[in-house]
Amino acid sequence: SRSINLAVIPGDGIGQEVVAQGLKVLAAVLPQDVKLETKEYDLGAQRWHRTGETLPDAELDSLKNHDAILLGAIGDPSVPSGVLERGLLLKLRFAFDHYVNLRPSKLFPNTATPLAGRPDIDFVVVREGTEGPYTGNGGSLRTGTPAEVATEVSLNTAYGVERVVRDAYERANSRPRKKLTLVHKNNVLVYAGHLWKNIFDTVGKEYPEVTTDYLHVDAATIFFVTQPERFDVIVTDNLFGDILTDLAAAVTGGIGLAASGNINPTGAFPSMFEPVHGSAPDIAGTGKADPTATILSVALLLRHLGFEAEAARIEETVSADLAERDGATFRTTDEIGDALAVRVAS
Amino acid sequence: SRSINLAVIPGDGIGQEVVAQGLKVLAAVLPQDVKLETKEYDLGAQRWHRTGETLPDAELDSLKNHDAILLGAIGDPSVPSGVLERGLLLKLRFAFDHYVNLRPSKLFPNTATPLAGRPDIDFVVVREGTEGPYTGNGGSLRTGTPAEVATEVSLNTAYGVERVVRDAYERANSRPRKKLTLVHKNNVLVYAGHLWKNIFDTVGKEYPEVTTDYLHVDAATIFFVTQPERFDVIVTDNLFGDILTDLAAAVTGGIGLAASGNINPTGAFPSMFEPVHGSAPDIAGTGKADPTATILSVALLLRHLGFEAEAARIEETVSADLAERDGATFRTTDEIGDALAVRVAS
Ligand SMILES: CC(C)[C@H](C(=O)O)[C@@H](O)C(=O)O
Ligand SMILES: CC(C)[C@H](C(=O)O)[C@@H](O)C(=O)O
Repeated sequence: SRSINLAVIPGDGIGQEVVAQGLKVLAAVLPQDVKLETKEYDLGAQRWHRTGETLPDAELDSLKNHDAILLGAIGDPSVPSGVLERGLLLKLRFAFDHYVNLRPSKLFPNTATPLAGRPDIDFVVVREGTEGPYTGNGGSLRTGTPAEVATEVSLNTAYGVERVVRDAYERANSRPRKKLTLVHKNNVLVYAGHLWKNIFDTVGKEYPEVTTDYLHVDAATIFFVTQPERFDVIVTDNLFGDILTDLAAAVTGGIGLAASGNINPTGAFPSMFEPVHGSAPDIAGTGKADPTATILSVALLLRHLGFEAEAARIEETVSADLAERDGATFRTTDEIGDALAVRVAS
Repeated sequence: SRSINLAVIPGDGIGQEVVAQGLKVLAAVLPQDVKLETKEYDLGAQRWHRTGETLPDAELDSLKNHDAILLGAIGDPSVPSGVLERGLLLKLRFAFDHYVNLRPSKLFPNTATPLAGRPDIDFVVVREGTEGPYTGNGGSLRTGTPAEVATEVSLNTAYGVERVVRDAYERANSRPRKKLTLVHKNNVLVYAGHLWKNIFDTVGKEYPEVTTDYLHVDAATIFFVTQPERFDVIVTDNLFGDILTDLAAAVTGGIGLAASGNINPTGAFPSMFEPVHGSAPDIAGTGKADPTATILSVALLLRHLGFEAEAARIEETVSADLAERDGATFRTTDEIGDALAVRVAS
């Protein structure tokens, strides 16, 4: 019989609240014969304040034993910027070699977009997750003095770029429009940019049916707001992907709906699923957090584990729920979770 | 008697066409007693194809003797990506120490914005222009092999950050709203990010009337489309500034209206003014290029040289012209230039 052994990291702020709804919907959508086991990990700001730890080795080891990880959000203003992001969230992405950071963007019916004309948006960003400017490579000399010099090194390898580019071609090839856009800044970042572009072109020869395109990251942001319907699959560097996917979330109805998966396609380590939004301490505890992004991340999680029907069921349910949502009626985090749980189960 | 000794680099594609209109309006707006001398520099793709040169030392030296530089656009698909950008455009910005890359964003009346609700947008981005990931520091090892490693190094100095942050505080302090937002990514790029944040906070003590704010670059892109009216002055790193100002141009009616100045506030070297858009080879020669961005860049140029009344005159004229533009009637590059020249002169 089938089973899911899930690690849960609620994290900080609204993370706790949205993860609870994700688990509710997960339990509701799974068939009776699937055994769901969850183990919660107490990681994040509170843990750090209590013990000074971000992600101890014992917990990192224990996390490896799960089929997947569901994460809420990490970060709190009471913790110096970077401590939890680098010591916990990015540590997990790097330790578990989550080289495909998958971020679908779809403008669901009846959701508020800031764009006039409601373009037909349905693309997915394949963001590299283990290289680029995110490697923590850099430093500071004469810190805090007028003579300070600080560096950040973007590291890019053919090994790392090729595997994520290949993954993106596979995804593009399996979609009806079969279109792949590389986003970089190869007119300025010539070393990394040329590495990306060369590999993009070379791997492309193996996918003759995929139409390709290249955009500088600055130009890409223009098309995100003027012509987002032109995109199908986008593959890009870790930092550009970070920026573009927040913008993508904004134009498709907001960060409350944007799901993501930090995927290790080899299965060597568990993949991790999380909403794109942060811990939003300003609205934590108010019931205003929209758990939909987390619930859609649960769908990505299920698809990754082979539960395609259940993943699709969640996505259809969210779509139907959004179509019926009435902007005037406020629903709490819990109420949205309940409504979706009832609906996926029925 | 007053005079302007201007260097003109039309460059590639539509650069030629828009610069011609910029010069037309400049000549029309200047009072009779101001002597305008211009010298054209043949730099860009054609020159490179002919001679292999991007910016020879003799021309770099000669450019130093001008009061300011007006540049059209640089870049052509026939030239390998990066050659002209790095060898000419960025070389000028770095050689002339253009540390303030000034990019105002204003939603003029009657212009098409992709944003529903036409928010009231009027902010200016102060983009650092001589550091960050733009220094050309980086390299590639085992290039073109499966073992390739490519790096890009972002260089940031207290010296470089402080002077641009100070410039941004001065600008914020002189504007009615007196608000300054720092944009960076200090939860990931901790070395450069903390340098920026520390200097931002320290210099801020000297400007008690300026309200300050910090945003991660990914979050900033969200506010650019959902709440752009919240911004007054933004100060940011070279690469983040590049990305944000294209997005800003897109939400304020398009890249055809976005002006910029590469400014050396010390006056040690000439400052350079250029539209934010590129050479757009696809529309070169068709008369479709909008010269307004270049004409607004001429206004920034005039302001920099102390011709405040003439700068304001151009800006008011553009605003009035846009207010009357009729989306249905197409006007060529030349026609727009003529209309604005007549109007500023009258
Ligand atoms: C919290 C932060 C480290 C993270 C990132 O930059 O990747 C977030 O913005 C994201 O997009 O998941
Ligand atoms: C052409 C390119 C090098 C340049 C930049 O990246 O600065 C352009 O995009 C700009 O914004 O002026």
